[in-house]
Amino acid sequence: MARIGIVGSEGRMGQAIAAILPELGHELAGGVDKGGDVARLADASDVLVDFSSPGSLEANLHAAIGAGIPLVIGTTGLEERHHRAIDDAARAVPILQTGNTSLGITLLSHLVQEAAARLGEDWDIEIVEMHHRHKVDAPSGTALLLGEAAASGRGVELAECRESGRDGPTGERAAGAIGFAALRGGTVAGEHSVIMAGTQERLTFAHSAEDRSIFARGAARATQWLIGREPGRYTMRDVLDL
Amino acid sequence: MARIGIVGSEGRMGQAIAAILPELGHELAGGVDKGGDVARLADASDVLVDFSSPGSLEANLHAAIGAGIPLVIGTTGLEERHHRAIDDAARAVPILQTGNTSLGITLLSHLVQEAAARLGEDWDIEIVEMHHRHKVDAPSGTALLLGEAAASGRGVELAECRESGRDGPTGERAAGAIGFAALRGGTVAGEHSVIMAGTQERLTFAHSAEDRSIFARGAARATQWLIGREPGRYTMRDVLDL
Amino acid sequence: MARIGIVGSEGRMGQAIAAILPELGHELAGGVDKGGDVARLADASDVLVDFSSPGSLEANLHAAIGAGIPLVIGTTGLEERHHRAIDDAARAVPILQTGNTSLGITLLSHLVQEAAARLGEDWDIEIVEMHHRHKVDAPSGTALLLGEAAASGRGVELAECRESGRDGPTGERAAGAIGFAALRGGTVAGEHSVIMAGTQERLTFAHSAEDRSIFARGAARATQWLIGREPGRYTMRDVLDL
Amino acid sequence: MARIGIVGSEGRMGQAIAAILPELGHELAGGVDKGGDVARLADASDVLVDFSSPGSLEANLHAAIGAGIPLVIGTTGLEERHHRAIDDAARAVPILQTGNTSLGITLLSHLVQEAAARLGEDWDIEIVEMHHRHKVDAPSGTALLLGEAAASGRGVELAECRESGRDGPTGERAAGAIGFAALRGGTVAGEHSVIMAGTQERLTFAHSAEDRSIFARGAARATQWLIGREPGRYTMRDVLDL
Repeated sequence: MARIGIVGSEGRMGQAIAAILPELGHELAGGVDKGGDVARLADASDVLVDFSSPGSLEANLHAAIGAGIPLVIGTTGLEERHHRAIDDAARAVPILQTGNTSLGITLLSHLVQEAAARLGEDWDIEIVEMHHRHKVDAPSGTALLLGEAAASGRGVELAECRESGRDGPTGERAAGAIGFAALRGGTVAGEHSVIMAGTQERLTFAHSAEDRSIFARGAARATQWLIGREPGRYTMRDVLDL
Repeated sequence: MARIGIVGSEGRMGQAIAAILPELGHELAGGVDKGGDVARLADASDVLVDFSSPGSLEANLHAAIGAGIPLVIGTTGLEERHHRAIDDAARAVPILQTGNTSLGITLLSHLVQEAAARLGEDWDIEIVEMHHRHKVDAPSGTALLLGEAAASGRGVELAECRESGRDGPTGERAAGAIGFAALRGGTVAGEHSVIMAGTQERLTFAHSAEDRSIFARGAARATQWLIGREPGRYTMRDVLDL
Repeated sequence: MARIGIVGSEGRMGQAIAAILPELGHELAGGVDKGGDVARLADASDVLVDFSSPGSLEANLHAAIGAGIPLVIGTTGLEERHHRAIDDAARAVPILQTGNTSLGITLLSHLVQEAAARLGEDWDIEIVEMHHRHKVDAPSGTALLLGEAAASGRGVELAECRESGRDGPTGERAAGAIGFAALRGGTVAGEHSVIMAGTQERLTFAHSAEDRSIFARGAARATQWLIGREPGRYTMRDVLDL
Repeated sequence: MARIGIVGSEGRMGQAIAAILPELGHELAGGVDKGGDVARLADASDVLVDFSSPGSLEANLHAAIGAGIPLVIGTTGLEERHHRAIDDAARAVPILQTGNTSLGITLLSHLVQEAAARLGEDWDIEIVEMHHRHKVDAPSGTALLLGEAAASGRGVELAECRESGRDGPTGERAAGAIGFAALRGGTVAGEHSVIMAGTQERLTFAHSAEDRSIFARGAARATQWLIGREPGRYTMRDVLDL
């Protein structure tokens, strides 16, 4: 059983992680939000989880180093300088930073990368995702993450082969393209499929989330995994030993 | 067993229909193409099937009336005046005109219309199709046909609620929208799904074609069905008694 | 806004319906459970919803008649004599009895029946369902309900064509069979697909539940729909005007 | 361009491979069937492909060694002594033996093994396949191959955790079970899905064959790959560098 301190404890993910700890056998050491004393929280915790905002990153890194405890960072919107600060801090304590804490998506992106590497460009890659009607952008961040995994498997840049929003007289599919399609409707929590279509056969790799609790669950598992590691910078793939 | 005459016998559909007749227990009466004598073909046939071009429609109608036999028209690109000519001829002989001869798609579009009529606009409708990499336009004609069925079930015009090619900062899904997404890849003959997404539940109506022979098969079945009918204008839905 | 009285208010469905009423603009008139005074509850309600047990059916019917209000019955395990009692009571008040309150499943079973009626027996019908790992029987009641709809569309009895649990040297598929397959795993709330497989084409009709709230939601909608109807016996299909 | 000799050239696979060679830029050196002179064929070929029967294996191995050329073996029904003979011959020439020549299935089984290894037993594994109505056994050989890959990833024997043909009062799903379900209908060439269902999320790995030509295509690619290799025994995974 670990004592887990949550930075950004009143945010959606902070609340979701706190709610799932008892089921996983952990204890909530406490939480802080904007203006809270993260150093004190760190002293009372075995590990910190940060789902706050980039502005508080520096204080969180200092607190983790000061208390000598690991830090999981799920904050989005990090810039180059934030990543440099994380690299520096990771010399002192173990830090896992990720943009997606789902174990299923982490595994899927690894397998998609491997499949894309093996099959070659005569297998066309299409990525289709569906989310609830309130989502305001397309494609989803997770779809792009899967697209990057596929592009990386092929040794190309996604930006150079991405094809989104097909409509009208498109002409034949460009060789090597990675296509994206976005469906919206109802209350769908999140579904992603990566299709690799060859000659007379097709592979599909799909992930379906029943609700958003999977992100909290994955974050909690990453947190547990990080305790006792050597200092260094880790990703979700390390949690699955990929 | 019926003697079937094919207009446009060297086209892809003409050839496919001819190839499938023996399996269905029918006989090929003969075929004509551009410049051929359709009146003589009609005299030797129990029914005519026309997959040629709008330019030969008038001659085909005359031939069917002259011989007193039914006519199936699958030619695409018909205009208003062609439809008026068909209406006139249908007073003398039975004529079935259609833009899609698949039995499965015909049934699907009927069921989609009914589902859309029952569920109301709080169920979001999305249509996704996949075709081979050589297809040059999106969405497919069949996807639009299914969208029109859904719009018709709701009592609206598709043109006013169609949403295609989502990409970028789309904002929330518009209430009442019918969305389209097009996937391209490999050698896929044709797959269509109509998704109706409500609160915490989802219905999906899908059709999958293994190859393009289904259009020839459906045309042959329509041809067989049309023999012996009263003069009048029919559609594929009549063949399925919808 | 209607005042809704719940019989079996401490059961899973009773609680779920109570929880969903505010969202739908209704008011909870109150609830009774084993030994409670249902007649008094009926007097304070515009409509009763019964998700209790067959043993309390008689009292519930009397209470509804006494107060002159409609009654929705979702209780399972009803026997022939219960159905006769419902028929009698339905001469005095409107009664809707159903074994499945999902709107999506209700619509799906209607469309499956129609599709099976149109396509004929050369389209093979397969029904596959997936539920969470704790489900103790197979196939699901909903899968059987869909199978009965398909059999009814064909004008046959399900018991005479049902084929479940294929394993080993099965021989070729029997003509006219309706096949069932059951998948179990994880926390899946409930997924059902009815596949109709013809020559080179396939139709799939699928329903996916994100959680079990859809049954409470459908029950609440049925309840609302029943208020103000003529006395008589109704089903979920009536709610959708099928 | 390679000269390819086919043993079992009049069988279904032999014919399919011969048909596909021109498209792939190869040349048919010739073919033999029961009683034919395989040694002479080997002399005229750069590589031999054997889709005949176990009874002719010995002669084929001798011919390949005699001519010093590689051999692809897709013959089914091999027994222990056949495998020993292949091992012996593989000291002299490169030999690739496999029970499934589809590239997509080969990759899929590798990825399923890896996924099963990473996820642990709290993700339930289910395998569902669909084939045409004439298939006489269940589950398919490919489904079992995928099940063995999953079991191998978990470090268990499939025979000890296989669960097929669920029907009736099954009780809760056994922990660690690998479930199989078989759908039959229409003309479906072959579809396989491996589902891994965790808490609130699900991964699905699927393969769909449009027709049986994929086996000939994969065999041809394996044949091409084998030319110029060191003596030794290879599998389809080697072709994909897995």
